[in-house]
Amino acid sequence: MASSTLGDTKIEELVKMPLKEPVLVQGLPGLGYVGKVAVDYFIEKLKPKKIAELYSSFLLFPDGNLGINISEDGTYSLPKYELYAYNEREPNAIFLTGDAQPSVTGQYEVASLVLDYVQQSGVKMVFTMGGYGTRTSNDVGAVYAVVGDQAIGDRLKKLGARLAKGGAVTGAAGVILGIARQRGLQCAGLLGATTGVYPDLEAARAVIQMLTSLVGMPVELKALDSEIEDMRKKMEKFRRSEAEEPREGEEKTSEEDKGRYIT
Amino acid sequence: MASSTLGDTKIEELVKMPLKEPVLVQGLPGLGYVGKVAVDYFIEKLKPKKIAELYSSFLLFPDGNLGINISEDGTYSLPKYELYAYNEREPNAIFLTGDAQPSVTGQYEVASLVLDYVQQSGVKMVFTMGGYGTRTSNDVGAVYAVVGDQAIGDRLKKLGARLAKGGAVTGAAGVILGIARQRGLQCAGLLGATTGVYPDLEAARAVIQMLTSLVGMPVELKALDSEIEDMRKKMEKFRRSEAEEPREGEEKTSEEDKGRYIT
Amino acid sequence: MASSTLGDTKIEELVKMPLKEPVLVQGLPGLGYVGKVAVDYFIEKLKPKKIAELYSSFLLFPDGNLGINISEDGTYSLPKYELYAYNEREPNAIFLTGDAQPSVTGQYEVASLVLDYVQQSGVKMVFTMGGYGTRTSNDVGAVYAVVGDQAIGDRLKKLGARLAKGGAVTGAAGVILGIARQRGLQCAGLLGATTGVYPDLEAARAVIQMLTSLVGMPVELKALDSEIEDMRKKMEKFRRSEAEEPREGEEKTSEEDKGRYIT
Amino acid sequence: MASSTLGDTKIEELVKMPLKEPVLVQGLPGLGYVGKVAVDYFIEKLKPKKIAELYSSFLLFPDGNLGINISEDGTYSLPKYELYAYNEREPNAIFLTGDAQPSVTGQYEVASLVLDYVQQSGVKMVFTMGGYGTRTSNDVGAVYAVVGDQAIGDRLKKLGARLAKGGAVTGAAGVILGIARQRGLQCAGLLGATTGVYPDLEAARAVIQMLTSLVGMPVELKALDSEIEDMRKKMEKFRRSEAEEPREGEEKTSEEDKGRYIT
Repeated sequence: MASSTLGDTKIEELVKMPLKEPVLVQGLPGLGYVGKVAVDYFIEKLKPKKIAELYSSFLLFPDGNLGINISEDGTYSLPKYELYAYNEREPNAIFLTGDAQPSVTGQYEVASLVLDYVQQSGVKMVFTMGGYGTRTSNDVGAVYAVVGDQAIGDRLKKLGARLAKGGAVTGAAGVILGIARQRGLQCAGLLGATTGVYPDLEAARAVIQMLTSLVGMPVELKALDSEIEDMRKKMEKFRRSEAEEPREGEEKTSEEDKGRYIT
Repeated sequence: MASSTLGDTKIEELVKMPLKEPVLVQGLPGLGYVGKVAVDYFIEKLKPKKIAELYSSFLLFPDGNLGINISEDGTYSLPKYELYAYNEREPNAIFLTGDAQPSVTGQYEVASLVLDYVQQSGVKMVFTMGGYGTRTSNDVGAVYAVVGDQAIGDRLKKLGARLAKGGAVTGAAGVILGIARQRGLQCAGLLGATTGVYPDLEAARAVIQMLTSLVGMPVELKALDSEIEDMRKKMEKFRRSEAEEPREGEEKTSEEDKGRYIT
Repeated sequence: MASSTLGDTKIEELVKMPLKEPVLVQGLPGLGYVGKVAVDYFIEKLKPKKIAELYSSFLLFPDGNLGINISEDGTYSLPKYELYAYNEREPNAIFLTGDAQPSVTGQYEVASLVLDYVQQSGVKMVFTMGGYGTRTSNDVGAVYAVVGDQAIGDRLKKLGARLAKGGAVTGAAGVILGIARQRGLQCAGLLGATTGVYPDLEAARAVIQMLTSLVGMPVELKALDSEIEDMRKKMEKFRRSEAEEPREGEEKTSEEDKGRYIT
Repeated sequence: MASSTLGDTKIEELVKMPLKEPVLVQGLPGLGYVGKVAVDYFIEKLKPKKIAELYSSFLLFPDGNLGINISEDGTYSLPKYELYAYNEREPNAIFLTGDAQPSVTGQYEVASLVLDYVQQSGVKMVFTMGGYGTRTSNDVGAVYAVVGDQAIGDRLKKLGARLAKGGAVTGAAGVILGIARQRGLQCAGLLGATTGVYPDLEAARAVIQMLTSLVGMPVELKALDSEIEDMRKKMEKFRRSEAEEPREGEEKTSEEDKGRYIT
């Protein structure tokens, strides 16, 4: 079991899996939670094997603090990235999910270490999934793409994606695309238009569908809508319980959470 | 006398003490001052020997500045952690107290160096004590626990602790638990419910009692309440003198302190 | 092709060009965009060859985030400095342009690496171009100079520049001048008075003219005004289209941009 | 000529001077400018020789930016510390003045490097001069002391100083005292009570007098008041010119300065 370290950031490999030119698919918490919902759906459906965890002093909570996340059974863990590998069919894939984004200071270090690690497994293509801020709900369902080269841009346009024209992709989704392109990897960012609702399942669905079409991922598309319908119901139930025990409503969320934070 | 250094952080060992698998008990300034009051009570009652001090450029004042603390006699010192060791009975223990928390940037470095040091002395169990924010004073006296594994969780539940279900432990109490668990140490955080009164002696008492029951620490529980009653009186006196010479009242505290800060 | 690295900052050399004691001319985004407009004009007119790119984890967006810039065709790249070399006539020159400034933490590292690199090519003089905040539009057209020694100050005064008397030059323009002077290079900062209009073409023109006079740069001055007139028209057109599709107006800019940022 | 470097911080020695156990006297910009005014007075009267300059990427402007300071003749330099040595009579002394304080991140590094350097010259006593915030002008003229040991505290009390009882000394004055004490040097901080007027010449005079009495510095005390009277007149003149050309008045200062800052 190899382990890689860069500065304060460390990848601990749990299992070595033979992989044939896997694609890297990253989804992290961000706008509308689009990327994370999407990658977690792939992980749920394809049941890839967890191969590694990344820990870093740069993985902060959204409030800028460091600490541990508590599970429902009272156990806890440091914020982390998890890498899952899938090699049952082609293309092989490594899915990267996580419960935090690195601080600005750590974005390069964390993205560089992830790429160091997955390139050892033969990764030559990098996809990040995320949200694309829009103000009209008309746009929902649309996927905006940023691409490392025009060939992949053309393929995405044929599948219905719109190429982003200007602007910026900030955060972990942008930084890993930037560094990966510099390293000569093929890259694309698939960004579901979202008004920022949290989590935006419509936007995540659009991104999942786009990526599945692009790389031929064997995800059963038929099951997709009912899956999402289930998630939506869970969410509604979750929201309702919040409403009764008013704990994570709009304004109140942060205050409440602060109150519950333990120091 | 060994000394350990990591980055800008340094532990200076004052005396070498033979210890038999001591438990580490950490209490630092934080919510309601619960952790610090509790650890200082153990130190007062058990009279452990100071074995080491930790200094770090990351130990900041609450206002984010660096500097020195002035004692009542005009002498001063840099903010520091102090480690005290107890080996008269079993379990042996190392108590970690301090007058500051590390900045976010330094949390990993400081916690890692503390663990490096205490693991050399054979520490296999880590306890942190702190406060658990609650809004109802009904909850006061309750101890919430976060645990590294379910076995210790079960033991704590039998002793009356409630397992925290979700949320986060931020700051030094959380980070050392997170890293210690990764290193394979047994861990628990004991968090006294507090409305944030400062210092919250009720919450500290509940945490002290829980830890004493859990590890069989030979603290005279009979003396506990009168001790706390004394502390309470001192506090009231302290508060009264503040009221007369209005210096650390709610809003005014920070302003006053700023005025008194010397630059 | 040599590459230089310092901390998280890296210069990738694209082509090796023979240069004879070139002057370094730096213009980066800043007040009124004066420096960047000016250097980009030199690059447009003299058609120097791109010799190197600098990447750094310290090149942040103005909002303090890291990420990638998206081009009009959907491709993207990390924020970067670009270095262009000109050796057709004397003086030879290296032009430094970029789409971001380093964070405070990275200013020394980035400026030091730039100087390491250009000194290898024989640079002995460093010019930075920028804006000089003024509140009266009467001042527009004036060039304020800060100088490494009085000899160059005297030459600039003869050409009509005013020497700045006190104050500070902050950011990348100031830091590279400061370090270059410490290294014994000849230095001057040419700062066009600007009320901060964005981009301030008048201020940029004044700076271009001053530098051209000072070092005898073979830029066709006749063409300058019509060039700027064109740029002005483009800007007006750009502003008008903004007005119709209200996207980058005063207050709205930042909000809009935020909305478009992808995470 | 030796040069010392630590991280991004560098001391450049200009001249080597034989010194016999000099005392270090530090005065940097801070509350009421007390420390800087005082140290600059010693430098003006004793005419010590400049022996070294310290440069650091951590020496920031008060607004948190990096850059260069512009002199009245248009030349500039990076913010720096200057060290002056005096060996005509005993005690020999090294005076440390500067035009900036390090950022929080750099305080330890800068103070450590200063101490490394002066300890090579035999320094065994460290004095810092600064302001002590008070709200009543009755207190002006008083000197509060913080001390490394009670012996020096007793001597200072006999000279009329009051020992500070609690609180904190933040910033460069505190940090160097803290580290110097850890290194076993004799230390004291002399803090003139100030309501924060800028610069507070009364407070500076009190501190100068106290230090002169304590270590027997051959500063002509008779001349002191007329000197200060001169300084006061200069200040008044300076303030009057500000009033006419409203540039550095209370509220307006920062705005104006911002406007004048060049980027």
